Amino acid sequence: MNKPTDIQELPSMPNADSEALLKKYIDVRAHTLQIVRPLRAEDFVVQPVVDVSPAKWHMAHTTWFFEEFFLAKSSDSYKRFHPRYAFLFNSYYESVGERVLRPNRGNMSRPTVDEIRDYRQFVDEHMMSLIPQLNPASLQLLELGLNHEQQHQELMLTDIKYVLGHNPLFPPYDEQFEETPNRKIEEGFISIEEGVYEVGFEGEGFHFDNEKERHKVYVNQFEIRKNLVTNSEYKEFVEAGAYQNPKYWHSDAWAWIKENNITQPLHWHQIDNNWYRYALAGLQLLDGGEPVTHVNFYEAAAFAEWSGMRLPTEFEWEVASDQFVWGQRWEHTNSAYLPYPGFLKPEGAIGEYNGKFMVNQMVLRGSSVATPTGHSRKTYRNFFHPHLQWQFSGIRLCKK
Amino acid sequence: MNKPTDIQELPSMPNADSEALLKKYIDVRAHTLQIVRPLRAEDFVVQPVVDVSPAKWHMAHTTWFFEEFFLAKSSDSYKRFHPRYAFLFNSYYESVGERVLRPNRGNMSRPTVDEIRDYRQFVDEHMMSLIPQLNPASLQLLELGLNHEQQHQELMLTDIKYVLGHNPLFPPYDEQFEETPNRKIEEGFISIEEGVYEVGFEGEGFHFDNEKERHKVYVNQFEIRKNLVTNSEYKEFVEAGAYQNPKYWHSDAWAWIKENNITQPLHWHQIDNNWYRYALAGLQLLDGGEPVTHVNFYEAAAFAEWSGMRLPTEFEWEVASDQFVWGQRWEHTNSAYLPYPGFLKPEGAIGEYNGKFMVNQMVLRGSSVATPTGHSRKTYRNFFHPHLQWQFSGIRLCKK
Amino acid sequence: MNKPTDIQELPSMPNADSEALLKKYIDVRAHTLQIVRPLRAEDFVVQPVVDVSPAKWHMAHTTWFFEEFFLAKSSDSYKRFHPRYAFLFNSYYESVGERVLRPNRGNMSRPTVDEIRDYRQFVDEHMMSLIPQLNPASLQLLELGLNHEQQHQELMLTDIKYVLGHNPLFPPYDEQFEETPNRKIEEGFISIEEGVYEVGFEGEGFHFDNEKERHKVYVNQFEIRKNLVTNSEYKEFVEAGAYQNPKYWHSDAWAWIKENNITQPLHWHQIDNNWYRYALAGLQLLDGGEPVTHVNFYEAAAFAEWSGMRLPTEFEWEVASDQFVWGQRWEHTNSAYLPYPGFLKPEGAIGEYNGKFMVNQMVLRGSSVATPTGHSRKTYRNFFHPHLQWQFSGIRLCKK
Amino acid sequence: MNKPTDIQELPSMPNADSEALLKKYIDVRAHTLQIVRPLRAEDFVVQPVVDVSPAKWHMAHTTWFFEEFFLAKSSDSYKRFHPRYAFLFNSYYESVGERVLRPNRGNMSRPTVDEIRDYRQFVDEHMMSLIPQLNPASLQLLELGLNHEQQHQELMLTDIKYVLGHNPLFPPYDEQFEETPNRKIEEGFISIEEGVYEVGFEGEGFHFDNEKERHKVYVNQFEIRKNLVTNSEYKEFVEAGAYQNPKYWHSDAWAWIKENNITQPLHWHQIDNNWYRYALAGLQLLDGGEPVTHVNFYEAAAFAEWSGMRLPTEFEWEVASDQFVWGQRWEHTNSAYLPYPGFLKPEGAIGEYNGKFMVNQMVLRGSSVATPTGHSRKTYRNFFHPHLQWQFSGIRLCKK
Repeated sequence: MNKPTDIQELPSMPNADSEALLKKYIDVRAHTLQIVRPLRAEDFVVQPVVDVSPAKWHMAHTTWFFEEFFLAKSSDSYKRFHPRYAFLFNSYYESVGERVLRPNRGNMSRPTVDEIRDYRQFVDEHMMSLIPQLNPASLQLLELGLNHEQQHQELMLTDIKYVLGHNPLFPPYDEQFEETPNRKIEEGFISIEEGVYEVGFEGEGFHFDNEKERHKVYVNQFEIRKNLVTNSEYKEFVEAGAYQNPKYWHSDAWAWIKENNITQPLHWHQIDNNWYRYALAGLQLLDGGEPVTHVNFYEAAAFAEWSGMRLPTEFEWEVASDQFVWGQRWEHTNSAYLPYPGFLKPEGAIGEYNGKFMVNQMVLRGSSVATPTGHSRKTYRNFFHPHLQWQFSGIRLCKK
Repeated sequence: MNKPTDIQELPSMPNADSEALLKKYIDVRAHTLQIVRPLRAEDFVVQPVVDVSPAKWHMAHTTWFFEEFFLAKSSDSYKRFHPRYAFLFNSYYESVGERVLRPNRGNMSRPTVDEIRDYRQFVDEHMMSLIPQLNPASLQLLELGLNHEQQHQELMLTDIKYVLGHNPLFPPYDEQFEETPNRKIEEGFISIEEGVYEVGFEGEGFHFDNEKERHKVYVNQFEIRKNLVTNSEYKEFVEAGAYQNPKYWHSDAWAWIKENNITQPLHWHQIDNNWYRYALAGLQLLDGGEPVTHVNFYEAAAFAEWSGMRLPTEFEWEVASDQFVWGQRWEHTNSAYLPYPGFLKPEGAIGEYNGKFMVNQMVLRGSSVATPTGHSRKTYRNFFHPHLQWQFSGIRLCKK
Repeated sequence: MNKPTDIQELPSMPNADSEALLKKYIDVRAHTLQIVRPLRAEDFVVQPVVDVSPAKWHMAHTTWFFEEFFLAKSSDSYKRFHPRYAFLFNSYYESVGERVLRPNRGNMSRPTVDEIRDYRQFVDEHMMSLIPQLNPASLQLLELGLNHEQQHQELMLTDIKYVLGHNPLFPPYDEQFEETPNRKIEEGFISIEEGVYEVGFEGEGFHFDNEKERHKVYVNQFEIRKNLVTNSEYKEFVEAGAYQNPKYWHSDAWAWIKENNITQPLHWHQIDNNWYRYALAGLQLLDGGEPVTHVNFYEAAAFAEWSGMRLPTEFEWEVASDQFVWGQRWEHTNSAYLPYPGFLKPEGAIGEYNGKFMVNQMVLRGSSVATPTGHSRKTYRNFFHPHLQWQFSGIRLCKK
Repeated sequence: MNKPTDIQELPSMPNADSEALLKKYIDVRAHTLQIVRPLRAEDFVVQPVVDVSPAKWHMAHTTWFFEEFFLAKSSDSYKRFHPRYAFLFNSYYESVGERVLRPNRGNMSRPTVDEIRDYRQFVDEHMMSLIPQLNPASLQLLELGLNHEQQHQELMLTDIKYVLGHNPLFPPYDEQFEETPNRKIEEGFISIEEGVYEVGFEGEGFHFDNEKERHKVYVNQFEIRKNLVTNSEYKEFVEAGAYQNPKYWHSDAWAWIKENNITQPLHWHQIDNNWYRYALAGLQLLDGGEPVTHVNFYEAAAFAEWSGMRLPTEFEWEVASDQFVWGQRWEHTNSAYLPYPGFLKPEGAIGEYNGKFMVNQMVLRGSSVATPTGHSRKTYRNFFHPHLQWQFSGIRLCKK
């Protein structure tokens, strides 16, 4: 295989075991198909808002990654599955020159879901032959590709939830889906001592470039809550009129509320004086004991202000993370998404993975019920614009 | 059957034959299914622009008309197919109070196409029992419902063409579809004498309220062309730089061109210095002999201006229509869509059918290759906002 | 003087008397200064909405007309007052190539009002020397220029009213300004017989190209009201909840109401349960006896529908106009602004005066309290987009 | 004087000397009038974009601050200069209930400049009697009011520059205004050692709440440039096509460039192949030796990327600031505007001063040629949204 030019710039990692990665490839690819099993063909198509991509786009885009960065470079004799797919399913639009018609994702009824399934199978067969022959640098890139597909697996679930949860019929995605499997979490606060701490990825496993370089930070003494804010607590905030009172909100948050007429978290509905919530299992009465979900940074920060608390910084979160249970919801921090000292953006398309998003976004830490098992770690930095609500995001508080 | 309250206000028509209408009902309903036969499930869902509705919405909305105005009123024991469908598929939003979530058509993956097929079958079975029992007034309303479905049949074709023609893969709808079956049309002009003429619907068959009252108009002498403007003629206009020169255009037209960066008719594409056109049969080299299609009023008027001619008024068109062949394309007129003398808007929802659109729209006369057989007539008044291009619309000229 | 190339295409008119036109020039130009006398420097600058131009722009633009079409063409030795003014004050943007920065009217603090006064005086001095030497064709163009300035005089008043009426302090323009000088108008209806009538300008005086050709129209019998709809009548409509009920409104009208949250005519204010109206004399209690003002076509049509009546067509209005008093308010008609049979657009910039606006606008007939004396006549065709409220426009009704 | 309820929450400061503050009051208030001296009445009115306020609004709003927080609370007998001004000139809209008409700043021709000058004089006379009687807490608030006016003085200059610099006539503000008085600045880099540093305000003078608490941060070794990026250097970036190449830009930056068609810094103009720049002294040839000005965060970050460097963090800047000359331009940092550890937002309207802006904005350090003397200090944190260009902002680089 010709070495992709992007690979030299990848973060240095030890040689991965190609056998283990072949197995992981098979597992990850199968999991994507597992996620879409409950869907009807029509569900794969729509894009109700710009941040929600159609399921069939996710399925094709993650496949394109392997075709583009492995198969197309592996041998001159490789013939792409379809000559236009590289154009249709490349999300790195900026480095693509040609545009006949903008591939507006939600308006593309073709290729059909079945055609995309065929595309996946075609690429998988070629990849399974290729993986045993990959050199160490390419195996690193393969692991990036698999983590990339896992990120899209989570997006598929949240995007599907958005699509079905905005359908007037509120069809369930899967009536057995449990959004809060682990409910018994201790209450109270943990106290962390002031001092210099190290943060950032350490060790030899896979990680994204934005987790490096590991570096020292000075952290003041703080206290952080063991459990997340619950629906009951958040309902108090809603019913206290907080969405009508500017004093709790950032200036940009208040503009967002006014412009979009926001009065409650995403997927909450007040029907006949009861609060309901659309979950992947369907529309259900709000369960006060569950952690609140689908709140954006603005809402998390306003809730913290209202309750006389604050959000942790991402470094406070990381330093304390061994001492509480995480994994229910992505947890908002009061840290902007910025490069660590010594961060270097790789050259080429891989370099567009993280660095170019390092403005106007806030860091979320942890992982959610929708995150594939084993995908996250305590140094993992997720990030979204502060107005976005559609992820499984929740609130952990610190004392002021 | 309880008489719908709307019926008394319908235009007076002779008793229709219920047996003939039952047959027409079966034919019209079957024709809708015929139109969607080439589609894949995914094609039924998308709404790339607000004027283009998903095919499954058309299928359900036309069915809702019969459920709402016949079955729901026919007996207290009728149980609707689904309690929410009246809400989802009513296009007369203004008279609907309740709104949980706005049924944004292109974002609704559910109900699925199969569920809507079941809905159609359910309603058809009930209607076929009911039709033989309908009184004359209800039969009139039935005929309106069938004409309504025929209008949506034409929209389905143009909407599907828009969806597939904006897909980067340009998938054909039906490779056998011939958009200009009748090409041998004589050239030259017809001259019509000055005088008082009668226009508007006359006789006893079905017609829309906007075609009445038949009335006298004074028409000056004029000359009108026998054949429509061709692609060749229109290509000259394009290649003469007319889309870059404000002098041919209305002020609002020029603003539309600038805002949308328009340089050619809808579905035209310049690829490697050749002109192509997306037709229902697929992407093909522009055929100079065909009548130009998918031009809006602004383009039709600018073309007329550029060629030293003008568009006919709707009355000129009607007076001359027995003397030329029409039916290839909807033909733009220079008449605004306004009520005829003595026009009375019926009470109730039926009253929203035509009257409320009588501002800001221009009249088109004739019919197109997409119009169901027998649907139109020479007094038929079609109407669109002047910027809309997606219908099978063409240009007939008059001398100045 | 070099004959401007535009002049040959002007409508044919008899030779005007240059002495009379010199006197008219002096009067019209002085009247513009009369109108702005009550203004403070700051009032000349702002443009709160796109349809409202700053007073100093009106003053300069009308002056530019004479500089551009007379002085700049009169002799090679004429030196323009300022080399950039032709660029700044040309409203016929389409025929202007150069653009350094878009001259966004309401953001231009310079030139100052005093500089524009100097510009007017400079141009007036040159024009007063030139007028006695003009040939007949140029005298016709001069009369067009004076009518053009009169049109801007009316716009200045309505624009100033908009600016001051939207200031939270509601400063009066002129406390002596009487918006309804002539209140004693007979009630009742006039009946007009069916038949062929002639409409359009006839005779030898000044008129716009859109008033020609005089032509025959067939008019059905109709009855038209002698007096305009009053504030009292319109207040009933408002208080009956008509702005909340879609049944009276065109579809586009209802969209306008919803998008702009409209609940009453422009310049009406409900304060402490009383209705006030901003008039040029200041904020005052609504006078029920005055004709309603500042309603757009949508509102006029909805009011007519609500009251079981209709608006006249422009031809009905013209045919009946000798039999009622007009001149209080511009009167909405149910006619779209379209060319008369035989209408020919003049070549060049003058050709942009009327023809390019002949789509999407409705005709208003008569004149208003703000129209300069002698400017209008019964064949005069004013026109606006149907959503515009800021003119002194009112409602005359016909029986259905 | 009744103590304003807001005062208890002010940051604790030592008693200020009322005599010194009276003198400062007189100086600051006079300086505002000094700034507007070159303006014509028309220049005080316009608001070409939402971030640019009219000069007369700045003059009135800074005056309102003293009337609202001092005079209105000082005695029950105080009669406001005008009952509506508190409504018109309060920028803290969120805590104001009543709204008759939204006081859209750029559309308010009244009150006139002269009326606002009278308002200033009225308030100044009352304040000068009141200041000697103020208690220490009120004197602190007074110092805040004066710093507030100084911030608006800088905005007045940049807003006026925007207004005149976007006028097609490019009128100078003041031909003597020198935007870069201090040009002789050493080149080269300063190196700072790794370690724990203290940042934030220390001492007893005036400071904003966002500068506290002083706290420890861990800073890695870094090298920072002694002089700012020059116009020559930035011109290379422009001429290298950087505005056409996405690889240097953040994702949001690229969207901003595309949406606004940005090709160069604000106030740069390419005319006949020469680069010009609008300065307060008028349009002039670009001076390569001056520091680049009016670049936003996106441009600063892209320039740094292009040149293989990076922007400093705000803490690096502060730690190194004693070792270089600052004060020419506000200097972009790569730090988001976030609270310091222990930051507490004061209660009431004063609490809206800083805290609510702590999202989506980036920190700028230093000061500019437009900053009033003595207003800034090395711990001062200025902040803007990353797309805003209209301040006197420049670029200081660090080695990667």
